[in-house]
Amino acid sequence: MKSNRYNRRMEMDISKNVVRVRVPATSANLGPGFDALGIALQLYSHVSVEVSPANENQIVMSGEGSEYGNIPIEENIAWQAIQLLSQRLKSTFPPLRLTLENSIPLARGLGSSAAARVGALVAANLWLQRAGENYLDHPQLLELATELEGHPDNVAPALFGGMTASVCDAGKVLSSPVNAEIWPRFLVFVPDTELETKAAREVLPETVSRHDAVYNVSRLGLLVASLSSGNWRENPEILKSALQDKLHQPYRAPLMPAFNIVQNAALENGALGVTLSGAGPSILIWLEADAKSTFKESIKSVILQAAAAESVLGKVIELDVDTQGCVVDNG
Amino acid sequence: MKSNRYNRRMEMDISKNVVRVRVPATSANLGPGFDALGIALQLYSHVSVEVSPANENQIVMSGEGSEYGNIPIEENIAWQAIQLLSQRLKSTFPPLRLTLENSIPLARGLGSSAAARVGALVAANLWLQRAGENYLDHPQLLELATELEGHPDNVAPALFGGMTASVCDAGKVLSSPVNAEIWPRFLVFVPDTELETKAAREVLPETVSRHDAVYNVSRLGLLVASLSSGNWRENPEILKSALQDKLHQPYRAPLMPAFNIVQNAALENGALGVTLSGAGPSILIWLEADAKSTFKESIKSVILQAAAAESVLGKVIELDVDTQGCVVDNG
Repeated sequence: MKSNRYNRRMEMDISKNVVRVRVPATSANLGPGFDALGIALQLYSHVSVEVSPANENQIVMSGEGSEYGNIPIEENIAWQAIQLLSQRLKSTFPPLRLTLENSIPLARGLGSSAAARVGALVAANLWLQRAGENYLDHPQLLELATELEGHPDNVAPALFGGMTASVCDAGKVLSSPVNAEIWPRFLVFVPDTELETKAAREVLPETVSRHDAVYNVSRLGLLVASLSSGNWRENPEILKSALQDKLHQPYRAPLMPAFNIVQNAALENGALGVTLSGAGPSILIWLEADAKSTFKESIKSVILQAAAAESVLGKVIELDVDTQGCVVDNG
Repeated sequence: MKSNRYNRRMEMDISKNVVRVRVPATSANLGPGFDALGIALQLYSHVSVEVSPANENQIVMSGEGSEYGNIPIEENIAWQAIQLLSQRLKSTFPPLRLTLENSIPLARGLGSSAAARVGALVAANLWLQRAGENYLDHPQLLELATELEGHPDNVAPALFGGMTASVCDAGKVLSSPVNAEIWPRFLVFVPDTELETKAAREVLPETVSRHDAVYNVSRLGLLVASLSSGNWRENPEILKSALQDKLHQPYRAPLMPAFNIVQNAALENGALGVTLSGAGPSILIWLEADAKSTFKESIKSVILQAAAAESVLGKVIELDVDTQGCVVDNG
């Protein structure tokens, strides 16, 4: 059956069916929105799917993470995503070449695994669609990516772009965009050293005070309402207050000694807020929408100095919000 | 000094300075938004402030709560609000007549105390402004009303209308509108019996599981994002999921035996969500924006039957969102 189907496909010249997508980095949690919010940023991974010219499954990696290019193909998370898609759709792919060109640093809390999974799923899914096979719609892709990732915080904004609020409810993934007319600007401090998400989750307590729960609930409401209504632009105090968290950052900060000092330095020098990116160690610095270049440069050097004082080395990059999500890339 | 000032005022004929405002009922918490969200509803209290014709302080009450009309004037919460305003502004009023015409049932979780306080503050403040005295702006009125009420959940929507997300942070009250183009429709089940907020707060545990905290955080994010973006209209499952709560309703439900049965009956018959109004005992039933009259009638009778089966009597009223908040009323 398989060979017959691929014989038919060959008649459509599937060798010309090359799908390349661009998928953004993401920052999850965003202060009070632990396991709920995520935002896409203009730092990308490119994922291509095509029939393998070598007639065998193949991964070609470049950029961040390419040092892991030698692991068995079955262990690659992008490849695993395509296998799950194939199982669910009961579609069989011909031998594929999967190309990953990645600018998102790994294990830094910037959603590199979500980008790999979403990028591979979207590219392979579109490959199937173009080949006339069954394929998934976007809500189904979100569910599949969430199943692989374990939570929707990063995969939802990687797929849809912008900021998203998500919930897993009885196996269903429900997500809504946080629509803002104007976004804050962001700087991201990316430490040179990695942090495993698992370790960052193990430090969280099983119980919290009702006070802390309500603290986050009320700040998250203010954050989403204020970004949507835009009223933080008239009163930046709203965003400063709304970006506070008591559910994860206080427990995780000891794992990354730079967090508190970077947070204080940035806030004292005019940042609107400072949030741990995902489980860390990267740190997201929130700035006014009209932050000037000179101001950003001064904040950058303040952050690098503060971190260096704690012997934490890294870089600071400027990243605006990506509002497109995972899209076909013709570049 | 005082008499001189009022002598000057008399020249402006302050006897014609009659301020009458309309202030809406409010429903706080709204499921996951415990101590954070509130919404204004089209059920009103009218508050008038004017120089007392009897030349002594006087309260005239009609409608809901007028059975408390005989308590000493100093114990009336609307009067207390005016006294605090007077203290803060260091302004002295002439003997006043305060008229309260109230359609909001007391001690039912519909924000009757917030309406009385906000209505009195706004009316008295406007009276001062018109008399050429110092007066407060809206954010200051919100802070004063919150100080009196203890939390901003009801006073913010009573003052501004619509839905609001609020936070108290280091004595400051920060609030943002939740902007929605289209609102759900509401039915409110109002039991005949009252419930004291204090009792409803005492049943809450001091600690909660992290899981429950995150449950609410993620649902609140989805609720606010979805109402703002309007995407609940395409997928009502989003609102159904987003309106769930684990921080207060499960603990308060035993205090009002009708809650669970009304909730189940309404959800089984097509309601989008059912939330406890404030600390209860009123119950807010969320319906599609285009809910038909026949559908609403059927839900009404389902609710009344379900409650009656638990020996809870009451009424069901249809209330749309009030988007104006506390406004001068010329009617």
